[in-house]
Amino acid sequence: MPEIRIDPVTGRAIIIAAERAKRPRHDGTNEESPCPFCAGNEQMTPPEVFAYRDPQSSPDAPGWTVRVVPNKYPALDNEGGGASSRRGVYESTAGLGVHEVIIESPEHVVNVGELSEEQLATVLRVYRERMLALSKDERWRSILVYKNQGAPAGATLEHVHSQLIALPEAPEQLRAEIGGARRYYEANGRCLFCEIARQDAEGGARLVAEHERWVTLCPYAARFPFEIWILPKRHAPYFERSSDQNLAELAHCLRDALARLNRVLDHPPFNYLIHSYPLDGAETRHYHWHIEILPKLVQVAGFEWGSGMFINPVAPEDAVRLLRQVTL
Amino acid sequence: MPEIRIDPVTGRAIIIAAERAKRPRHDGTNEESPCPFCAGNEQMTPPEVFAYRDPQSSPDAPGWTVRVVPNKYPALDNEGGGASSRRGVYESTAGLGVHEVIIESPEHVVNVGELSEEQLATVLRVYRERMLALSKDERWRSILVYKNQGAPAGATLEHVHSQLIALPEAPEQLRAEIGGARRYYEANGRCLFCEIARQDAEGGARLVAEHERWVTLCPYAARFPFEIWILPKRHAPYFERSSDQNLAELAHCLRDALARLNRVLDHPPFNYLIHSYPLDGAETRHYHWHIEILPKLVQVAGFEWGSGMFINPVAPEDAVRLLRQVTL
Repeated sequence: MPEIRIDPVTGRAIIIAAERAKRPRHDGTNEESPCPFCAGNEQMTPPEVFAYRDPQSSPDAPGWTVRVVPNKYPALDNEGGGASSRRGVYESTAGLGVHEVIIESPEHVVNVGELSEEQLATVLRVYRERMLALSKDERWRSILVYKNQGAPAGATLEHVHSQLIALPEAPEQLRAEIGGARRYYEANGRCLFCEIARQDAEGGARLVAEHERWVTLCPYAARFPFEIWILPKRHAPYFERSSDQNLAELAHCLRDALARLNRVLDHPPFNYLIHSYPLDGAETRHYHWHIEILPKLVQVAGFEWGSGMFINPVAPEDAVRLLRQVTL
Repeated sequence: MPEIRIDPVTGRAIIIAAERAKRPRHDGTNEESPCPFCAGNEQMTPPEVFAYRDPQSSPDAPGWTVRVVPNKYPALDNEGGGASSRRGVYESTAGLGVHEVIIESPEHVVNVGELSEEQLATVLRVYRERMLALSKDERWRSILVYKNQGAPAGATLEHVHSQLIALPEAPEQLRAEIGGARRYYEANGRCLFCEIARQDAEGGARLVAEHERWVTLCPYAARFPFEIWILPKRHAPYFERSSDQNLAELAHCLRDALARLNRVLDHPPFNYLIHSYPLDGAETRHYHWHIEILPKLVQVAGFEWGSGMFINPVAPEDAVRLLRQVTL
């Protein structure tokens, strides 16, 4: 079973998951072996936990459009106790959580930017359905949906997919965002993310695109070159409460952002992730869900690891100029 | 001039440094162009700020063993004002700091593990001399020395070198370490790092090697597979107050750790960094300087960026077993 260890110095939680070291690669370098995510190879994955599929079809057989399976090499395990142990300065708990894979196409598509708008909307609805289903289990307080696009961004399988991890606690990065947003709310009586969406949409220097309900921007303090955020214009703490219509528009907006990135940077590796409020139903006026798209164009190096700061060689205002020039 | 921007949500400092995008590569892929760090090519770098060199030789000419130059594409600039600006939720200051390169050999050596123990001791003494010299400038409160070994670890030039950045404030990661160590000291009346060095040296499960004054270990909550820390056994907050004799022994110890890594993992890319206490002379009984060696064997992916947690597929106890088996 994986183990969550607490760094005695910083308090940071680290997942030690030896199972993960056994992951095979299918990133285009071993063409002979079949892809476990292609339709027809369903028996190569653990049994599905959810799928949008033809009502005439059977689980774990072809006929699906998006399919969700447990990660075969999970970073966390959803069975077993959460008992913690302590020895001297060292503290750990069982690595309790859920780790799922969302397979985004039955065909062997390798870039999410190639999915149709309709298919991408279906993928977003599947994210929502899994978040809603997992939020019924009281053990989970936070769910992170993320995508690794391309091997340099951490993908070991090239077939389009994203992942989801449900955790018993909100993770450090989300807590840091919520803490900062709460302080801003307490001082100003407004949601900081609403303010960012408004200020950047009006100023325009960091605005990639404005849609009816969404704004796409390069954030002011971007960690990475061409980092992009997508925020709902209206205050909304929970991704998983988005309506079908909202998600259809979001698919349009996300596809537009990815197409711009792919055009300007020739299909770069990237991660995207959805930050949504923890599942505890407490005060939510200060936090606003959003998508972060993080291209992997520069290596994170010794300075970043040692300082916790980032050096970004491309000002977001310069990235925006290039992203806006694209004709799609 | 580079700019330091504060993320309005998390408060994280980001350096926007457009100059850095102009860096040329000399990582073995463009063999024709001369290496700017080799002896004889001194005119290709900015004028040196320090060197250990033959007293008969002239600055910016051959005759040196270790040479320090300003980074030609600096992340920070040591001239200009530190005036801050604020517009709505956005806050920035001028990117004030020092960014230097320590060239570790006059010959075109490409792996620091190949340096002799004597040469490595000279490199460590140069780190110390530059930290002492820069600490006389009251603008700098924190100096971070780090190495990027190999292109996947962020090196754009393959010739052995490390870098140093002096900052007007202690960076986030160091502040987090100091904060945790201070809380431990206040609760227990002991230095947490002294306790880690003692507990791991005695227990042995994470001990790579024990030397007279140093202990080499894989930390309990390692972020990365085969992460290694080197700590002085006796409490010492400042790297730059190390004696020549201490640094000679440290060179032995560091070379031993790198040789084990290179043997077990066949010369992996890695970063190392020195965490030393800020230059403010305040209470230091709780903080203990140390070296962190961070191999780059797995990609940092969407989950890590989204959560701030790390998934490490190799338990430090398993890494230690392999590192100890090596016969050097």
